[in-house]
Amino acid sequence: MELEFLGTGAGVPSKGRNVSSTALKLLDERNEVWLFDVGEATQHQILRTAIRPRKITKIFITHLHGDHIFGLPGLLSSRANQGGQEPLELYGPVGIKDFVETSLRVTGTKLNYRIKYIEMKNGGEIFSDKTFSVYAGKLEHRITCFGYRIEEKPRTGELLVDKLKEYNIPNGPIFGDLKAGKTVTLEDGTQLDGKDFIGPDKPGKKVAIISDTRYTPEIDKLIDHADVVVHESTFSDEDKKLAYNYYHSTASQAAREAKKAHAKGLLLTHISARYTGKASLILQNEAKKFFENSRVVNDFDVYEVPFN
Amino acid sequence: MELEFLGTGAGVPSKGRNVSSTALKLLDERNEVWLFDVGEATQHQILRTAIRPRKITKIFITHLHGDHIFGLPGLLSSRANQGGQEPLELYGPVGIKDFVETSLRVTGTKLNYRIKYIEMKNGGEIFSDKTFSVYAGKLEHRITCFGYRIEEKPRTGELLVDKLKEYNIPNGPIFGDLKAGKTVTLEDGTQLDGKDFIGPDKPGKKVAIISDTRYTPEIDKLIDHADVVVHESTFSDEDKKLAYNYYHSTASQAAREAKKAHAKGLLLTHISARYTGKASLILQNEAKKFFENSRVVNDFDVYEVPFN
Ligand SMILES: [Zn+2]
Ligand SMILES: [Zn+2]
Repeated sequence: MELEFLGTGAGVPSKGRNVSSTALKLLDERNEVWLFDVGEATQHQILRTAIRPRKITKIFITHLHGDHIFGLPGLLSSRANQGGQEPLELYGPVGIKDFVETSLRVTGTKLNYRIKYIEMKNGGEIFSDKTFSVYAGKLEHRITCFGYRIEEKPRTGELLVDKLKEYNIPNGPIFGDLKAGKTVTLEDGTQLDGKDFIGPDKPGKKVAIISDTRYTPEIDKLIDHADVVVHESTFSDEDKKLAYNYYHSTASQAAREAKKAHAKGLLLTHISARYTGKASLILQNEAKKFFENSRVVNDFDVYEVPFN
Repeated sequence: MELEFLGTGAGVPSKGRNVSSTALKLLDERNEVWLFDVGEATQHQILRTAIRPRKITKIFITHLHGDHIFGLPGLLSSRANQGGQEPLELYGPVGIKDFVETSLRVTGTKLNYRIKYIEMKNGGEIFSDKTFSVYAGKLEHRITCFGYRIEEKPRTGELLVDKLKEYNIPNGPIFGDLKAGKTVTLEDGTQLDGKDFIGPDKPGKKVAIISDTRYTPEIDKLIDHADVVVHESTFSDEDKKLAYNYYHSTASQAAREAKKAHAKGLLLTHISARYTGKASLILQNEAKKFFENSRVVNDFDVYEVPFN
């Protein structure tokens, strides 16, 4: 599980940072890539990565500001051009369907795959299958905005090979049966219950995407014990009044939230153009005062989940 | 008068060429920039040029395919962010207003300038003032598509300074009056009519923008005696059947048109990704066989009008 940052700037593209888009790469887990926001030229950014548009199976839009959605029509078209035929799920606030469908209709674009729109008013658990679930929570921005919590479901524990050693089990199907939790009978008549030989479930990984917002208690729930919190950080402490007035966050606010929620790592994105180049370290340093494992991310950065 | 190429690729962005946009820079003539098509990430390309978005006063859309318009909402928003307050005229086929207005409405974008939409069904003279006129002509693409002819009006001739020498006129307002075509009386009583001392009108410059199309006789009118013809050239001779079937042009077809119309220069754009790097010279060489002053353009190329 990896996060790849495709656009880490706020509001308008700059030479150093494109507008918002973050990829959650679930290649080992699902052979899929999920995108969070699709600012203009996200497809151009993807051209410079190893991500294949047809592997993008879900797109989650946090809110309908242009710097978070103007890349959608182009990306959807290119996904079709590049052979994507699997259906695509598009989650976002009410209005996203109107924007996409108008763009496709006006341009006469016929996609060779189906888009399933999930337009949200209030959030809640919006997706769940055997291995993953996604929860959307309402943030506090000028317009409706959702944060997302992605949870991998607990994975079955490992087979306790050491504990099995005394039984001299031959290599072969018996291991598989035990690992599947079945009861097996050995040649000498001994019965073994697989459940006794499997370690505890391994907790799944948790990632939270907190886009444009002021502090609101919903954030605490979204980021609780997350392995990685991706948090907007448009302003530094110096401009915390601006942050509040424009419904945005500061770096140190994000760090205090991460600490309080016992998160393991914090990645700061949605960086204002006023912090160009090394100036973005101001934000990182402010965050580190409260939460050591904090980083300001740049376009094309890739982070393992969890990271250290 | 200059042409600056912001996107010279066909269909989808590639690492080498962005999707369509061409800037006609009329800085000396009007202190304005006119854009022809606005593919996705045109505003990103503009960031790397000296063009200021607020100087863009007119945008002409050739047709409503995504690779020609998906950059519009972002560019219009950034023009507002960067202080553009002058009204903007947006010309294009019926449907362009729906796309732009939906994009602005869904994203809650309020521009601090007015957009005047000129939606066209049939073309004709769509703009004319003291110094310039623009004519739109219907091309032959899968959907409604317009080519544009931009004509600078003839400029008043130069004051014939040599012819005035014998009158020993002192430096000062008399020259201005003569140049303005007024009659002046010299100290010795001689009367001079300004009109007798002004050379012939200088012809204005003419530029034609021929976007996605097969050959159609309307092109001959649009490019007649143009100083520069900017012509799509998606395919080479080898693929001329593809070109015809997909309603596109080949390089040599564009060159034959330019020769027939007595144009002075031909710039080939809308280059398919199959001709990467030096392969695009195939197109240029095919064109030069029929029309010597032909060039394949690249993103960020700048050409004077006329060029040699
Ligand atoms: Zn934003
Ligand atoms: Zn095109």
